[in-house]
Amino acid sequence: MGIATGGVVPEGADAVIPIEYVAEHGNEVEIGGDVKSGAHVRPRGGDIDAGEVVAEAGSVLTPARLGALAAAGIPEVRCTRRPGASVLATGTELRRPGEKLAAGEIYEANGLILSAQLAAAGAAVERIPAVGDDEAALRAALEEALQADVVVTSGGVSVGPHDLVRRVEAELGVQEVFWRVAVKPGKPIAFGIRRGTLVFGLPGNPVSALVGFELFVKPAIRALQGVSEPLPRFERGRLVGARRQNPGRDELARARLGWSEEGAVLEPLGGQESHMIARSAGADALVLVPRGEGVLADGAPVGYLRLD
Amino acid sequence: MGIATGGVVPEGADAVIPIEYVAEHGNEVEIGGDVKSGAHVRPRGGDIDAGEVVAEAGSVLTPARLGALAAAGIPEVRCTRRPGASVLATGTELRRPGEKLAAGEIYEANGLILSAQLAAAGAAVERIPAVGDDEAALRAALEEALQADVVVTSGGVSVGPHDLVRRVEAELGVQEVFWRVAVKPGKPIAFGIRRGTLVFGLPGNPVSALVGFELFVKPAIRALQGVSEPLPRFERGRLVGARRQNPGRDELARARLGWSEEGAVLEPLGGQESHMIARSAGADALVLVPRGEGVLADGAPVGYLRLD
Repeated sequence: MGIATGGVVPEGADAVIPIEYVAEHGNEVEIGGDVKSGAHVRPRGGDIDAGEVVAEAGSVLTPARLGALAAAGIPEVRCTRRPGASVLATGTELRRPGEKLAAGEIYEANGLILSAQLAAAGAAVERIPAVGDDEAALRAALEEALQADVVVTSGGVSVGPHDLVRRVEAELGVQEVFWRVAVKPGKPIAFGIRRGTLVFGLPGNPVSALVGFELFVKPAIRALQGVSEPLPRFERGRLVGARRQNPGRDELARARLGWSEEGAVLEPLGGQESHMIARSAGADALVLVPRGEGVLADGAPVGYLRLD
Repeated sequence: MGIATGGVVPEGADAVIPIEYVAEHGNEVEIGGDVKSGAHVRPRGGDIDAGEVVAEAGSVLTPARLGALAAAGIPEVRCTRRPGASVLATGTELRRPGEKLAAGEIYEANGLILSAQLAAAGAAVERIPAVGDDEAALRAALEEALQADVVVTSGGVSVGPHDLVRRVEAELGVQEVFWRVAVKPGKPIAFGIRRGTLVFGLPGNPVSALVGFELFVKPAIRALQGVSEPLPRFERGRLVGARRQNPGRDELARARLGWSEEGAVLEPLGGQESHMIARSAGADALVLVPRGEGVLADGAPVGYLRLD
């Protein structure tokens, strides 16, 4: 007898023959060759057994995982909420794109970069208007920013007289956990906590902000969402061209990601200074060049982080 | 004289010494060692020259690219709109998760999987309630679906008497471009066009729908958004374990993606039948096993697509 694709196998039948392989002659069907018991029949529980876990706690609900949950008949799952993140760019020299620049001024890019990175990482973003290097204005903006689960500032964390962010944050009760990291770019990165709020101070150079986000902020945003593996996931490929190590700092070099027959190849871009955001726009990846006194050879295996 | 980080270099000065490297003695400063002309000074146009392109047409606005545009002072860019996509799962056997199943019924997962994949690819998704294998209901649902830029159905494209989708679409004016592809899973995939609407008929098995989306629908969604390289981007790694080729069809095997010192390693998962969506939930990648009469050896270089 005939059944539809996905239909129930009738009582007593133990195999199905696809209609494409059957010739009909009036009231009879001709079958070419033997048919094994169980052919084209899917046993109950063939995909998953009763009691098995469909999605582990801490897993991201990808399309396939959502589908697996639906197929198992699960109409609702418990998810974490999106963490709220506020973004504040600081610097008297900043102007909005479209405005006229005076001498020494530059366009503000970090607020946009960090907001886009935060949103992609799953945060609900509030962008606070940029403030100049003015204590009162900075304090007011930081007080507002500190209402969020995560604060990300750019600029004002180095050692000059205009670098006010850490001092004003301390006055507002932020406990500094670390300041300055052995990473290039991104050396002056600061991190502190106020009650439940995580406070990241990224440098003002856009590339440093971008890289600092990937290494320090994104893992925090992922952890706050309960992701079981929140740390940066370095993938592995081969370096194109030799590259000198920095003696004191691990370097994250902006690179173009390509593919040879056997795997990823990473070609660092020209223009690796931390203000060169236009040149960084073509980067797909950050290659980790570990600190050291030597040179990574052309073709050396390296770790890299993807940028999307 | 002192200037702030990011400040303008005073007339006549040609180098800056970081404050960390200066010792102050009353009204004098002590500098350790030589200072090169140009040290810590960033020339005008050092990142990008006037007239250079910041973002090529057809490029995706990643955080870095947004930042590069902002830093160049560009307040607005022209983007494509999100294509509208309607999703319709078909099949009399389908029930919603949470409902009671009768004999031969299964939970509907494809609508959710495809909606999540479409949204991730950039489409604005309209999910149409699933319909049974009933001509009138199917016609009404398809008429509604065909208002979108892209229609994605699941089920009803094989050769059984209940496989009505292609026939009803033809009656509604859809011109079929192809039906059936030499791909495993996903053989009965259909594609047609009605005026400006692209119509994809994916199979009812959830894994076939998921894989068919990656290979056929996602490139179309990307192309409609003007992406300059819309086709699936196969990356390269090495196979874990030997794998027999299928003589007639290219196979996309669900696999777990890991990393050796030198690159990606792809371990196909157990349970590769096209209804096994729960087992597919743990897959990170689809490994391409090209059609052929032989066996891919353990460690053979292979192409793979990432699943997110």
